[in-house]
Amino acid sequence: MEHKIRTDLALEVRESFPEDDVEIKGVVLTEEFAQEKKIRITTVAIKDEHGAKLMQKPVGTYITIEAPDLDKDSEDYCKPVSDLIAKYLKKLAGDLKNEEILVVGLGNREVTPDALGPQVIDNLFVTRHLIREYGEEFKKKNRLGSVSAISPGVMAQTGMETVEIIKGVIKETNPKLIIAIDALAARSISRLNTTVQIADTGICPGSGVGNDRKALNEESLGVKVIAIGVPTVVDASTIVADTLTKYMESTGFGEEDIFKFISEVNGTQMYNMFVTPKNIDEAVKRISYTISEALNSCFSQPAVS
Amino acid sequence: MEHKIRTDLALEVRESFPEDDVEIKGVVLTEEFAQEKKIRITTVAIKDEHGAKLMQKPVGTYITIEAPDLDKDSEDYCKPVSDLIAKYLKKLAGDLKNEEILVVGLGNREVTPDALGPQVIDNLFVTRHLIREYGEEFKKKNRLGSVSAISPGVMAQTGMETVEIIKGVIKETNPKLIIAIDALAARSISRLNTTVQIADTGICPGSGVGNDRKALNEESLGVKVIAIGVPTVVDASTIVADTLTKYMESTGFGEEDIFKFISEVNGTQMYNMFVTPKNIDEAVKRISYTISEALNSCFSQPAVS
Amino acid sequence: MEHKIRTDLALEVRESFPEDDVEIKGVVLTEEFAQEKKIRITTVAIKDEHGAKLMQKPVGTYITIEAPDLDKDSEDYCKPVSDLIAKYLKKLAGDLKNEEILVVGLGNREVTPDALGPQVIDNLFVTRHLIREYGEEFKKKNRLGSVSAISPGVMAQTGMETVEIIKGVIKETNPKLIIAIDALAARSISRLNTTVQIADTGICPGSGVGNDRKALNEESLGVKVIAIGVPTVVDASTIVADTLTKYMESTGFGEEDIFKFISEVNGTQMYNMFVTPKNIDEAVKRISYTISEALNSCFSQPAVS
Amino acid sequence: MEHKIRTDLALEVRESFPEDDVEIKGVVLTEEFAQEKKIRITTVAIKDEHGAKLMQKPVGTYITIEAPDLDKDSEDYCKPVSDLIAKYLKKLAGDLKNEEILVVGLGNREVTPDALGPQVIDNLFVTRHLIREYGEEFKKKNRLGSVSAISPGVMAQTGMETVEIIKGVIKETNPKLIIAIDALAARSISRLNTTVQIADTGICPGSGVGNDRKALNEESLGVKVIAIGVPTVVDASTIVADTLTKYMESTGFGEEDIFKFISEVNGTQMYNMFVTPKNIDEAVKRISYTISEALNSCFSQPAVS
Repeated sequence: MEHKIRTDLALEVRESFPEDDVEIKGVVLTEEFAQEKKIRITTVAIKDEHGAKLMQKPVGTYITIEAPDLDKDSEDYCKPVSDLIAKYLKKLAGDLKNEEILVVGLGNREVTPDALGPQVIDNLFVTRHLIREYGEEFKKKNRLGSVSAISPGVMAQTGMETVEIIKGVIKETNPKLIIAIDALAARSISRLNTTVQIADTGICPGSGVGNDRKALNEESLGVKVIAIGVPTVVDASTIVADTLTKYMESTGFGEEDIFKFISEVNGTQMYNMFVTPKNIDEAVKRISYTISEALNSCFSQPAVS
Repeated sequence: MEHKIRTDLALEVRESFPEDDVEIKGVVLTEEFAQEKKIRITTVAIKDEHGAKLMQKPVGTYITIEAPDLDKDSEDYCKPVSDLIAKYLKKLAGDLKNEEILVVGLGNREVTPDALGPQVIDNLFVTRHLIREYGEEFKKKNRLGSVSAISPGVMAQTGMETVEIIKGVIKETNPKLIIAIDALAARSISRLNTTVQIADTGICPGSGVGNDRKALNEESLGVKVIAIGVPTVVDASTIVADTLTKYMESTGFGEEDIFKFISEVNGTQMYNMFVTPKNIDEAVKRISYTISEALNSCFSQPAVS
Repeated sequence: MEHKIRTDLALEVRESFPEDDVEIKGVVLTEEFAQEKKIRITTVAIKDEHGAKLMQKPVGTYITIEAPDLDKDSEDYCKPVSDLIAKYLKKLAGDLKNEEILVVGLGNREVTPDALGPQVIDNLFVTRHLIREYGEEFKKKNRLGSVSAISPGVMAQTGMETVEIIKGVIKETNPKLIIAIDALAARSISRLNTTVQIADTGICPGSGVGNDRKALNEESLGVKVIAIGVPTVVDASTIVADTLTKYMESTGFGEEDIFKFISEVNGTQMYNMFVTPKNIDEAVKRISYTISEALNSCFSQPAVS
Repeated sequence: MEHKIRTDLALEVRESFPEDDVEIKGVVLTEEFAQEKKIRITTVAIKDEHGAKLMQKPVGTYITIEAPDLDKDSEDYCKPVSDLIAKYLKKLAGDLKNEEILVVGLGNREVTPDALGPQVIDNLFVTRHLIREYGEEFKKKNRLGSVSAISPGVMAQTGMETVEIIKGVIKETNPKLIIAIDALAARSISRLNTTVQIADTGICPGSGVGNDRKALNEESLGVKVIAIGVPTVVDASTIVADTLTKYMESTGFGEEDIFKFISEVNGTQMYNMFVTPKNIDEAVKRISYTISEALNSCFSQPAVS
């Protein structure tokens, strides 16, 4: 049946089709594993407009790293996941060593599950101002790319669409690539804080907790946008609708009944509510550190003698 | 039907009984209004063990201030609600001007909906150290009570039960009254960030986001404990169970079916999840300010010439 | 004698001239008082290039509000100072009710004395997105100006000059006026957290704790810039040099000796050090609230029936 | 000459004696080096009351690790310093694997240079509640010590002396060892954020930014107290007095003149001022992480099969 599910993960959209093992036209799915099969990497490639329409996501490549222990307090786990993020980021974006990159930390740093983007920025090693001060010689010697970064805040704080702020900053500072980090909404609770999605399509509207509506992508910004997202919340209406649908289907209700009920749920105060785990503070701290380490390893290189 | 609902509001427990307008033995309900009926104040008095058992809450008085616009950005609203909190706090605790009071800000300041208690402490005007430095003369002249305050953190941060920390602090500093501020869990989304509960029974275990298990009350601490709580979250399993129950009842399911399904929901990963609104940062900021202003007005008095 | 003193307050530059009560050519000084003479308001008007060169500040008007108790915990004090800031802000900027304004919170929110700007933004009531959503009718009915706001961070965090970020944001969002809030450096400790400077010249480089070098003014941004600054730090080398100069002058040293010594002080590690009071957290919190209340009162107007 | 210098580093007190290379009675000084002589470790052992009086510090052992690049952004540096802290901590405290330890993060988290202690606590892996939940078997299997932690805040926030809070917590939770982390005041700017002092004497009053007056030591708490401190500030009056003294001595002034002048400096508003570097946010973040890693490595042990 078709009801509008709310997820920012291409993988979850793909899973929502009944024909799970059959190829959908225009959508190619591949799987890899790492860390003794504990980590699964799935690539969803949306090849054409047919696939895009079915998936309700833009044409492009979406790589999902599923690391079930990423939300747990285990230091040994950060490094391998960080290495995987770096590896697949480079697969989508190419070598980043000599690039001029603007990293954008989307989200509201005052709301814990939405603070992922700003917390990544807090740990980033920015270099653009150093290169401008010490010159190209310094850049070459240290084999540095030019990295700048901003946490623009959310519309309720700034009164501006994030795309307006970033577009302006791009015009003045001319980066060649944008990497946007954001908290996402998943459909399934089990994906929260255990999944990293890297996509070459930019960030689709309405992600995570925020309410900004306009996409950050090559079309709106004029520069290629790689998005790194981690689902930290599930929409409250999604969780209710999904649980209920499952139950109603199992007890023989027809699609019409179910659709009617779901519509009622969506019409309630649940609209602006999200679901998140109680240990969200530790999870966001750990994952943002993992991502910032991945980025730092892609950008800079230890000085050589 | 009886399934275990999860709410820290005595008012919501009372509402969960079908015989809404009939008197329950051992529980007295009274209603008042303020601000042209826009604010309702309900007092639930649990009089004896029978009432306590039915309500699953200790004997005592629970005053609930329902201010539907408290979560909205309206400065004119803070003052009247602040005045009402002060008024009913004094009703339960007596005059606080000359008391020796320890205010405890419960909760985790790193998780937005749980940061209410610590944020109240941040705005509090503490005086105990001033009185100890400048003496009783200073205290009388400025008509100050002795106020101390602490945000002990949560068990996952400290490794200690909150009651252990507070009990120790009480032994060393001898306050005559504890006022504990905490974020609560409600059953209904419409009560989030719009309701203040003041109770003379202390704080019951498991409130809000945290996992501490032992109550802070006169029995455990040896000192009277007034609790001020604001529901900022709903348990994810509560929201799913409630929505579903409503639906199943309306479509003629029996209690057994419903109970079985609810048990399944409660057995899932939803256990450690909570639901909270997207604007939780602004709401907690505004409400914690409102409560701290109420407390400051109860404690201190402008100097007289 | 002339050694380079480091202050962002035009008033302190003016005071550094020996001919205190004589008129300096091109610089006009006027004084007013408020709150029973407890608050002094000084206007330094730099009229021409001669004055600008002498004062080492751009031509324009610098209004300084000296409120000696502003750093103390006294609620009754915030409102009158807030009203004075609003009054003199309107004197320099005109009526702000129907303006399209971008408020910029300069500084690093992670360094307490430099967090003034970002903390003002945190308390600001932004409206631009509301007007764009609900239209001009809504704006007129609520008599709102269009207010947007940003805390861009500092160069060490972003890799970008603040002027680059703001210039880009202006191009995309077209505000008609910029109000920039910043922590300043004073020369005298007694001015810390007790003084508010409002200037129609923009922000001069090198203010406060940060290291950005380019001015935010009408020339660099193409839009009028009103700056509101509060000194929260004194440069460490300034404090040493000033104390020493005073002593050396009193003991009969010649200018040459003193100059030589000051140069030595300035050449030390003291270069990147600042001096700030121990209660800086409370002071910045109180003053940022006072300024945000002044701005909110200038921008918005309660709805009329 | 003798004027009261203000430093929490035993090493700096020792250096202030003119007879630098001569043995002072009751004070033993030893030196070691690490990291190809880039890191110096100095042990000042105060052996008896004579030494204690001279040094104005309690009898005990003070180990100072001087790592000149610790304030710089260099990841490769954290690990060796962290290992050294762990090594010398164990030298003073013994093996910590099976201990019951309470870690206290002293200081005000709202004032950047004073946030060192609370930030160490934020990164600490606490275990006491896990052991109490899962039992001794779990403890043995995972070879865990029992670690609890608290950031009590400062007197201006709590109205209580820190020693009162910690004493109470100790009575209720019975740790066998206290490790107290605090920001310190140094005399020399070059020691800021580059030096770690580990002492088995507890924390002496008046350290860092705070104003608490009572020591945390075995005498006041009844439990052994190891202190780990990092100088993040210099008193403003110290910096002025030191610079001036140096100058006056070099130009032939007598002790009396100098003493008189210093007294004047100390009598000014400089009293409550401190000096700290502009990059204090990054330095405190890096160093608190380094210390928390050292502690985590001392306490816990990877699970064995």
